[in-house]
Amino acid sequence: MVPCLTTALSGPLLDLERRFLDNATTIERWLRSQWQEHTPPFYGSVDLRNSGFKLAPVDMNLFPGGFNNLNEAFHPLCVQAAMSAVEKICPDARNLLLIPENHTRNRFYLQNVAQIAAILRRTGLNVRLGSLSPEVTAPTPVDLDDGTQLLLEPLVRSRGRLGVDGFDPCMILLNNDLSAGIPDILRGLDSQYLLPPLHAGWAVRRKTHHFAAYDDVANEFAKLIGIDPWRINPYFSSCDEIDFHDRQGEDCLAAKVDGLLTMIREKYREHGIDETPYVVVKADAGTYGMGVMTVRDADEVRGLNRRQRNKMSVVKEGLAVSQVIIQEGVQTFEEVGGGVAEPVVYMIDRYVVGGFYRVHTARGRDENLNAPGMHFEPLAFETSCSLPDQRCDPDAAPNRFYAYGVVARLALLAASLELERTALPAGAAVAA
Amino acid sequence: MVPCLTTALSGPLLDLERRFLDNATTIERWLRSQWQEHTPPFYGSVDLRNSGFKLAPVDMNLFPGGFNNLNEAFHPLCVQAAMSAVEKICPDARNLLLIPENHTRNRFYLQNVAQIAAILRRTGLNVRLGSLSPEVTAPTPVDLDDGTQLLLEPLVRSRGRLGVDGFDPCMILLNNDLSAGIPDILRGLDSQYLLPPLHAGWAVRRKTHHFAAYDDVANEFAKLIGIDPWRINPYFSSCDEIDFHDRQGEDCLAAKVDGLLTMIREKYREHGIDETPYVVVKADAGTYGMGVMTVRDADEVRGLNRRQRNKMSVVKEGLAVSQVIIQEGVQTFEEVGGGVAEPVVYMIDRYVVGGFYRVHTARGRDENLNAPGMHFEPLAFETSCSLPDQRCDPDAAPNRFYAYGVVARLALLAASLELERTALPAGAAVAA
Repeated sequence: MVPCLTTALSGPLLDLERRFLDNATTIERWLRSQWQEHTPPFYGSVDLRNSGFKLAPVDMNLFPGGFNNLNEAFHPLCVQAAMSAVEKICPDARNLLLIPENHTRNRFYLQNVAQIAAILRRTGLNVRLGSLSPEVTAPTPVDLDDGTQLLLEPLVRSRGRLGVDGFDPCMILLNNDLSAGIPDILRGLDSQYLLPPLHAGWAVRRKTHHFAAYDDVANEFAKLIGIDPWRINPYFSSCDEIDFHDRQGEDCLAAKVDGLLTMIREKYREHGIDETPYVVVKADAGTYGMGVMTVRDADEVRGLNRRQRNKMSVVKEGLAVSQVIIQEGVQTFEEVGGGVAEPVVYMIDRYVVGGFYRVHTARGRDENLNAPGMHFEPLAFETSCSLPDQRCDPDAAPNRFYAYGVVARLALLAASLELERTALPAGAAVAA
Repeated sequence: MVPCLTTALSGPLLDLERRFLDNATTIERWLRSQWQEHTPPFYGSVDLRNSGFKLAPVDMNLFPGGFNNLNEAFHPLCVQAAMSAVEKICPDARNLLLIPENHTRNRFYLQNVAQIAAILRRTGLNVRLGSLSPEVTAPTPVDLDDGTQLLLEPLVRSRGRLGVDGFDPCMILLNNDLSAGIPDILRGLDSQYLLPPLHAGWAVRRKTHHFAAYDDVANEFAKLIGIDPWRINPYFSSCDEIDFHDRQGEDCLAAKVDGLLTMIREKYREHGIDETPYVVVKADAGTYGMGVMTVRDADEVRGLNRRQRNKMSVVKEGLAVSQVIIQEGVQTFEEVGGGVAEPVVYMIDRYVVGGFYRVHTARGRDENLNAPGMHFEPLAFETSCSLPDQRCDPDAAPNRFYAYGVVARLALLAASLELERTALPAGAAVAA
């Protein structure tokens, strides 16, 4: 089952997919040359939105949490990509420590952790799970839905090295996005590979840095295949020194929202698009769709009631919001079984290894589909993202998924640039 | 559909598969370390035989000809592995020249060529086909069964570079095993990557060199996981200066056959195996199952009639046989639909990307299943070779295929050693 594009505006998108298809060889070669210059993150997932006239990433997650949602047929791709990543980073690696999120009661998330561990074991690594949670003070078995168990172990730090009892890893893989800040136990590690690096965590990372890097990537790519970069890139802007509680920064926010809506309206006119422009206001740091607001008019950000302001003022782990990104809203025009569907593409190293749709029956096409407390139905991609087929329509499943895989890799490349630009000088302490 | 092991002797094999399963992490790590030291061939396929008590490679092909027989679900694995290979060899590559075999009328083979070209295009390469055939003097379209076409073009050599008209490749990939000798047009190329190297072709290559390297690999691997190396390695011996027409070398052959049968009989006794030992006599150079003879008694090689001697005296392209390898016969105890099934595993770079069974209904379990003029039915592997599952029986499909993938990679590693050892000093002319 593949979601249908339910828009009269699919013409321009099919044109976009056609461009990707016709230029597939050029695109792959260009990406290969980019990966010669830039190191991809160990893994990542990208939320895409497909509005028929625009196909763009709206979020890039460096601690992906849905490997359990991928089509089982793609597991060999995950193993092969992980083999390639491990070989590059630490070919002699014997032991890998995986550090998951602290919320040990989310059974979907735990399946994701089990899946990551299974992939890594199949590359030839001993994998154990070390928990940052203060509640894990002894080895703690956790039951999974499929009848298996995970064993969470307390971290053990000895001088410059981190491990769990009797286990000294060469590589430490974070699946914890550090929204709660960088714990001391992770700082100043000596000769162990910590991936992704600490500044990839939300304690330090900013969406605006990512999308600034994405601007550069999208512009170069658009020139390569001859398209308006706007077709793959949402406008964005930002405000610092926001305090939703104290209504501080409202003027900045209203002005930026208004400016962005004007720019989008202009583009809609240029491309003959008969839709209502909107923007999405999000915390610049943080994830899980908390602190997110859809806005169609600048006035909306002035008259926020207490509930709305509370909702916007904190994200995961109680991290206070003081900077926001205002991002052009991209409608999602894919529907399946009466629900709105948003594609999420998964990557390991520089390879697309699968993806799935988040399907919401209760949400609109201009709403955020990754909201807290809202359960989405995952729908695994049926085919891979690496087999474009010139003989089929540009919107045939292999070609649509190929387009998704391309845009997702542009976001991955932007993440590489972002991490290079925000890297701290060697030896410097990470402030957070 | 997965073939059944139809032997009362499956006990020891299940024990072997159990060893592979229990040591999967160690095995993968060991293979990773081996690929740090040795460069895998660009691609390869391995014929395995599975006798229940023994699982061993009997042939390693460096110019694989059955990519069309792989499960379509594994195509993304092929693309990903080829991306990794191209990135290592020639990351800036834009153009690749593929040189197929000359027999342009084999429609199965042509589908293989089309499949290889499709995989390479998806890695971001322009691919054109250059033919060594003297019949191809102008661009020659060839129709494929699926309604598409291949375009064979005459090779164009200008000074140190090889291409086709208007096409200067960075990489030249041979899918022609050079049984007919090394054509001058391929010699002395300047700053173009020619893969596999010329000495991998049958004009130079010898099976005995391969299996000597495999001895080393099998011994080290057997030590690693604690098994008798014989369980994964067929005994072999060789005779030079054979001339089947003149009955020259019969004594050497009979003596070697007898010696090998004695050694196998000894091993059968040691392992309690109630089967009749046999050996296979093959041309030391060459492929396609020509010049192959199954022998159960040394006397058989003395009384060869004219037909048998003719059959043994030449292989593909009329190459005369003067050296033979005498290899321990490994029964194939896998059956499907009343036919005998022999697994063939496909690899690109260091990755297993799929495989299929050759199924013959008209041949016995101790006969060569890759014989000229005998059409086999390919049966694609149902699952991948990279997902061993500890929770299943050692003989469950993912685990059996994992074992196949491991032994195939041992043969691939042996091919790397073989090519290192037989490489010519830089600048030396290749004699053939």
